[in-house]
Amino acid sequence: MTYCVALNLEEGLVLCADTRTNASLDNIATFSKLHVIERPGERVIALMTAGNLAITQAAVTRLTESIPDINGNGGNGDMEATRATLWTVPSMIEAARLVGRTVRDLFDEDASNLMRHQVLFDATFLVAGQVGAGKQRLFMVYSAGNYVESSPDTPFFQLGEHKYGKPILDRVAKYDTSIEDAVKLVLISMDSTLRSNLTVGLPIDLLTYRRGSLHVGLQRRIGEDDAYFRTVRERWSEALRTGYRSLPAPQW
Amino acid sequence: MTYCVALNLEEGLVLCADTRTNASLDNIATFSKLHVIERPGERVIALMTAGNLAITQAAVTRLTESIPDINGNGGNGDMEATRATLWTVPSMIEAARLVGRTVRDLFDEDASNLMRHQVLFDATFLVAGQVGAGKQRLFMVYSAGNYVESSPDTPFFQLGEHKYGKPILDRVAKYDTSIEDAVKLVLISMDSTLRSNLTVGLPIDLLTYRRGSLHVGLQRRIGEDDAYFRTVRERWSEALRTGYRSLPAPQW
Repeated sequence: MTYCVALNLEEGLVLCADTRTNASLDNIATFSKLHVIERPGERVIALMTAGNLAITQAAVTRLTESIPDINGNGGNGDMEATRATLWTVPSMIEAARLVGRTVRDLFDEDASNLMRHQVLFDATFLVAGQVGAGKQRLFMVYSAGNYVESSPDTPFFQLGEHKYGKPILDRVAKYDTSIEDAVKLVLISMDSTLRSNLTVGLPIDLLTYRRGSLHVGLQRRIGEDDAYFRTVRERWSEALRTGYRSLPAPQW
Repeated sequence: MTYCVALNLEEGLVLCADTRTNASLDNIATFSKLHVIERPGERVIALMTAGNLAITQAAVTRLTESIPDINGNGGNGDMEATRATLWTVPSMIEAARLVGRTVRDLFDEDASNLMRHQVLFDATFLVAGQVGAGKQRLFMVYSAGNYVESSPDTPFFQLGEHKYGKPILDRVAKYDTSIEDAVKLVLISMDSTLRSNLTVGLPIDLLTYRRGSLHVGLQRRIGEDDAYFRTVRERWSEALRTGYRSLPAPQW
């Protein structure tokens, strides 16, 4: 399984994803689920993925390959460069549409073969970022290629094993939460998931983006030995224990 | 859906269940999922249910009907009184076996008809309590009629929508947690579930049992207007907010 969470806040974006994939419980591996397209000063688009790894990898390849150079010439030849990728889409809404079209193309190509093996076509995506003078936006794209956009009322989306880490977000995450606080929040939300579900695993990938900056703020891989994440885990556990112990005794 | 949780602790038992049932999202109703068999000084057995309401109601009826009077005469006639119920089983392990046999009987009777309507045969149970001089025990009985028992290493079981409320239990619930602290814990766990999932709803049923007492400690229905539950919800939200705000800022 997977756990990805993205917050689209007034100040910017905070994204966090685990890296565990599992073919079954006895076959786990580490794959990044957070992919970043950055051309400083021009665009930052982050793509997070959940679902069948063969499908999501194929999607990421199509969405990011053929990187045009600064003169617009395609990295894989001009033929390739004429196809739209996340490096060339003119806006975030076009980025979401492109992800949707790509997953529909993959469905047309693969779904019938997967079904012959009783494998569901399952791939969902979070697409977040900002292109040029356009708006900072966050979209969730479904396996069917349709998509929804976050709003100030609901400033976060999750993929995969979302339930363990949702209560803290439901209670605390608001549109005006600062990037710094949101980093704490996604780490707490991830930690709750890691502790309760083996199919979500370290290391985790974290990314922050400040609205209007058009360059990645922080991008960090966090493993077992990350001192700050360890502090968050210990202090948060302590805060929960203290919090519940300090509740008054039932008056019944 | 449903959320039920039961802790089997050194001091005793703490059980909590919501009361929402839903045929679909636009058809919800309130049904108790916590059923108590109590003969003070002789037995306390609590039965919690999740799954298809028609199946769980049929099971509860079979498991609890035909209450023999103090002379052993059946409430519904002597024919009925000869059939074992939770009022007559000699031990908790026999209680778990009886629940298992009952759900298997119901499967034999109903499953093929349900399948004709694409309805899964789905019913799971928590059975907790103490009979006479026997041990206090907690079992989870599956739709297939097989069962598992809690242990000091894993002193709690959950039914239904268990994920939202699991992180706090995973972190804090231990075999030596006191009944009073466990009451706070299950209310916090339930609150997290209520906030994040509409298919779990108030009021909730709470029951405590002190090991060896052979009578129910506390049995209480808790609604929106319960002052203590309101205090727990508010103070816990406050503790979470304070806890995450007091985390140090990232050092990166």
